[in-house]
Amino acid sequence: MNSNYTTRLESVRQEMDRLGLDAYILPSEDEYLGEYIPDYNRRLEWLSGFTGSAGMIIILKESAALFVDGRYTVQSRQQVSDQDYQFLHLHEDPQAAWLCEQLESGKVVGFDPRMHTYQWYLDTKSVLKAANITLKSLEVNPIDLNWHERPTTKVKPCILMDEKWTGINSLTKRTNIGKAIADKKADAAIIFSAESCNWLLNIRGQDIPSLPITLGFGILYANGDMVFHTNLAKLDSNIEEHVGSGVSFLDESDFKESLVSLSQKQVLADFNSCNAFSLIHADYNGATLIKQADPVLIPKASKSEIEISGMREAHIQDAAAEIGFLHWFDQQIEQNLRLDEAALSDKLLTFRQQQPNFVEVSFDTISAAGSNAAMCHYNHLNGSPAKLPENGVYLVDSGGQYDFGTTDITRTLAVGQPDDEIKRHFTLVLKGHIALDQITFPKGTTGSQLDVLARAPLWQNGLDFDHGTGHGVGHFMSVHEGPQRISKKGNDTALLPGMVLSNEPGYYKDGSYGIRCENLVVVTEIEDLGQDGKTFMGFEPLTLVPFDIRLILKELLTAPEREWLNSYHKKVHSIMIDRIADQDKEWLFKATRAL
Amino acid sequence: MNSNYTTRLESVRQEMDRLGLDAYILPSEDEYLGEYIPDYNRRLEWLSGFTGSAGMIIILKESAALFVDGRYTVQSRQQVSDQDYQFLHLHEDPQAAWLCEQLESGKVVGFDPRMHTYQWYLDTKSVLKAANITLKSLEVNPIDLNWHERPTTKVKPCILMDEKWTGINSLTKRTNIGKAIADKKADAAIIFSAESCNWLLNIRGQDIPSLPITLGFGILYANGDMVFHTNLAKLDSNIEEHVGSGVSFLDESDFKESLVSLSQKQVLADFNSCNAFSLIHADYNGATLIKQADPVLIPKASKSEIEISGMREAHIQDAAAEIGFLHWFDQQIEQNLRLDEAALSDKLLTFRQQQPNFVEVSFDTISAAGSNAAMCHYNHLNGSPAKLPENGVYLVDSGGQYDFGTTDITRTLAVGQPDDEIKRHFTLVLKGHIALDQITFPKGTTGSQLDVLARAPLWQNGLDFDHGTGHGVGHFMSVHEGPQRISKKGNDTALLPGMVLSNEPGYYKDGSYGIRCENLVVVTEIEDLGQDGKTFMGFEPLTLVPFDIRLILKELLTAPEREWLNSYHKKVHSIMIDRIADQDKEWLFKATRAL
Repeated sequence: MNSNYTTRLESVRQEMDRLGLDAYILPSEDEYLGEYIPDYNRRLEWLSGFTGSAGMIIILKESAALFVDGRYTVQSRQQVSDQDYQFLHLHEDPQAAWLCEQLESGKVVGFDPRMHTYQWYLDTKSVLKAANITLKSLEVNPIDLNWHERPTTKVKPCILMDEKWTGINSLTKRTNIGKAIADKKADAAIIFSAESCNWLLNIRGQDIPSLPITLGFGILYANGDMVFHTNLAKLDSNIEEHVGSGVSFLDESDFKESLVSLSQKQVLADFNSCNAFSLIHADYNGATLIKQADPVLIPKASKSEIEISGMREAHIQDAAAEIGFLHWFDQQIEQNLRLDEAALSDKLLTFRQQQPNFVEVSFDTISAAGSNAAMCHYNHLNGSPAKLPENGVYLVDSGGQYDFGTTDITRTLAVGQPDDEIKRHFTLVLKGHIALDQITFPKGTTGSQLDVLARAPLWQNGLDFDHGTGHGVGHFMSVHEGPQRISKKGNDTALLPGMVLSNEPGYYKDGSYGIRCENLVVVTEIEDLGQDGKTFMGFEPLTLVPFDIRLILKELLTAPEREWLNSYHKKVHSIMIDRIADQDKEWLFKATRAL
Repeated sequence: MNSNYTTRLESVRQEMDRLGLDAYILPSEDEYLGEYIPDYNRRLEWLSGFTGSAGMIIILKESAALFVDGRYTVQSRQQVSDQDYQFLHLHEDPQAAWLCEQLESGKVVGFDPRMHTYQWYLDTKSVLKAANITLKSLEVNPIDLNWHERPTTKVKPCILMDEKWTGINSLTKRTNIGKAIADKKADAAIIFSAESCNWLLNIRGQDIPSLPITLGFGILYANGDMVFHTNLAKLDSNIEEHVGSGVSFLDESDFKESLVSLSQKQVLADFNSCNAFSLIHADYNGATLIKQADPVLIPKASKSEIEISGMREAHIQDAAAEIGFLHWFDQQIEQNLRLDEAALSDKLLTFRQQQPNFVEVSFDTISAAGSNAAMCHYNHLNGSPAKLPENGVYLVDSGGQYDFGTTDITRTLAVGQPDDEIKRHFTLVLKGHIALDQITFPKGTTGSQLDVLARAPLWQNGLDFDHGTGHGVGHFMSVHEGPQRISKKGNDTALLPGMVLSNEPGYYKDGSYGIRCENLVVVTEIEDLGQDGKTFMGFEPLTLVPFDIRLILKELLTAPEREWLNSYHKKVHSIMIDRIADQDKEWLFKATRAL
């Protein structure tokens, strides 16, 4: 409870007074609306001390509220003063409705339109309007005006991604998506997502840890021409040749002028990815907005054969690192060395760093011993790292960015003599993983339709897990990529060949242990399977690392499940045996033996 | 191709001229917007000759179009003249967009607001408005003005349903749902669905074959009072005592006045079930409409213990009839009597008619021999009924309305010596049926999440079926009841204890044969299963009729699947043995023997 935060809150209130605001809304998002926020844009953390990845603050004249989701109930109360803030739920206490309860008719609520989606703006404005409250778009951000010791942005160069790794050059990508824009009778599309822009231009970057992109936003025209707004200092002299004809690079601060030039044009815009600023200005200047999902999402998610071959090689290198780690881990256990979560995570990193094309981790490693693994979003850096239990399990969820692919893997490892309950639950989780991996499905099937397969073995035993079963994964890009997803929640994105997803059912026993079995898989068309003229698809694992067979209760597996496991392990052995260190070969042979 | 229809079309065009219309839209729906249309309201059939259950006609000055879905592609072209109509797709050729292509700016399109939902009206108006075309609400219906030999409506008395069968009296139901209306800060709800009104008043009726309701619509107030508009001649003298205090019965023609009385009130309205007429008038007269699903749907679908006990008894009587029929069927086959589909359907009806509480069939029986069964919506009355094949299968999908419940069952029966391909596909369908039946799931799960379980065995073999897996079923009411459903399409209705659904995967080989395995099941809470504080539910079959084990390839069933089947058959035998005719007992014993 740092009184600094109270001072900061007061300084923002003074700013609100000057601006004539009765309330101010501050989200955790920044002006790029991406999943990861660089240090210098962590405004909500600066104001309140809250470090969680999602949240919102509403400041009123006399009080303030912090809205967080269930993941952060405990953490928010530890980090933030209850003298300054009341704590509410991000989803169960809708902010606009709450504002209507707090404020009288005629009051004014300020927000920074760069840090909210346009859809959020429309929805919030409509709720507030019904109560005669004005939602006022601010030109200046009250935090930025008061944040004096703000971290500086380092200018890290843009990465030009070779066509041998993307398979398609930028001009072809832009021309193809331009045609899709023309097919919708539109003149242009605002491509606000930096990931979409990076994919279109075959560039990457170093602006955010674990997410190798160059921040920026753009406009793609129906003829394939594109404007990309970014920090121009990041671009190298070969960029124009690299992207081919038709691309203009402009500074971020000039985006308003590009929006003005959309006047009288039909403009595709994803209301859920574009910020309010861009669409308010486009609309104000006479563009006709056509609400539609970002046209880059599906082509980017449906990876080309060359992109998939890069993903495969990245997974081979990643498996070599993971196998090295798993062997070393077993040696530590044999020697009764009960290392802590931080030492384990650090050691795993050294194995990845030995791989020729490793760039960085694709997310903060979850290294969780014993009961810590029961917290899905555990981070051992948030407290003192725990030591391995004498008997139980260790869960490690990690991944890497490689020059031509992205990985994400979770293995749950036996420590000492885990009891039969743990083994039973591990086996149920693995059964779900297998059921999802081996399903074949007709064209048009969504990930939501398949989700139950990964849960059914747990459900039959009155158990479940409280997270999605699978997320999309990018190609040397975000480890969380939409729009494909495998989850309970309905999702109308049909799975397409080349899409990469995680398959990661789990089980978490509060205060005791956590289990998760995660591979990445790629959607592939299966020739000769579909009857009656139907096209069928299936999953193929990209991840090539053994599951810990010491945790399996063999009698709980059906014959087809055992066959799946043996065949997977045989494949792991055959592909990896020539790619790992000599010292790991015997270990791999044993770890992949048939059950 | 009857020239009568051409004359009728012309007479409607003359009416359009008088009304100053450039186009007129006629849906297959009538003023009750229910699934079943009584003869005297089959306006689209009168105009065009098309007898399908769903369609829309748009008449222009010089041309006209009939919109039907894939089920009716062939039938529509057989029944309707291509001189008078062009044929378009009901879903793939959106009508409003098509009108915008056909008509110039400034034109006027007429529609009868009683025969479309309010949501349809809003959507259509908005599309037409963008093209500066006016959607004009008509006071008179051009068909009704010209339909001179229209069937008369027979006044069939309303049925008062005893509390011993409903479990809850009308006053309690109305008070409870009134509270739910008050919770939404509303004063009243327009309950347009006749089924919802019948459930609220504990009445049924005889207005429509197979759907035992009294047609009408109403308004429920937050205090539990209700107005029901119907043909008052149907009500008997005990109605007021039956429904308890607070109900006014008014003629249908007075509905407009009831809507006027909603002036200045907050009114819940289901835009997808209320007709445009009611909400246009409520809105015009100053009511504030709050868009929300009909508040009766979930309570009606989640049946009480007493309703479920009625459903159980209905299923026992229905199983007695079906078992009698199956035994008789086998005898005919043994004697090499190759009966036709009509004779079989008629015979099945005689077995149902012997049951003490049978009222009528719950839908037109699908009695389909050989390749006819490959058409999901086959009706043997549409042509000359086919005879049973020498070797193959016979599919019979039928059900009954009983005084206290509704049934729906499909069995696929061996005829002669079906080949191994048929048996293999039957076994795959049955595996899907079993997988869905035996799943247990946490509170909050929707039917869409479970759908894949019924399809997975087919999918693994490159096969699928092109219909939903399960629909809701009413309590002595519609055999198709929402909002619960098991289907590929996303549906956000969580399954709740007491909901009844069908479990009916199938496989259809064009031109060869059709297979379907259908039971009704009820959702039940499973005590002592859920761990970690979770509530778990499962399905319990209501249907008690053996599956034809002669069609099973035993080696394709897993041990748990065999156990499921044997245990189900054991239950069928133990419950039914004392409820069937003596002559059927030996047959049942054999039909339910363990595999």
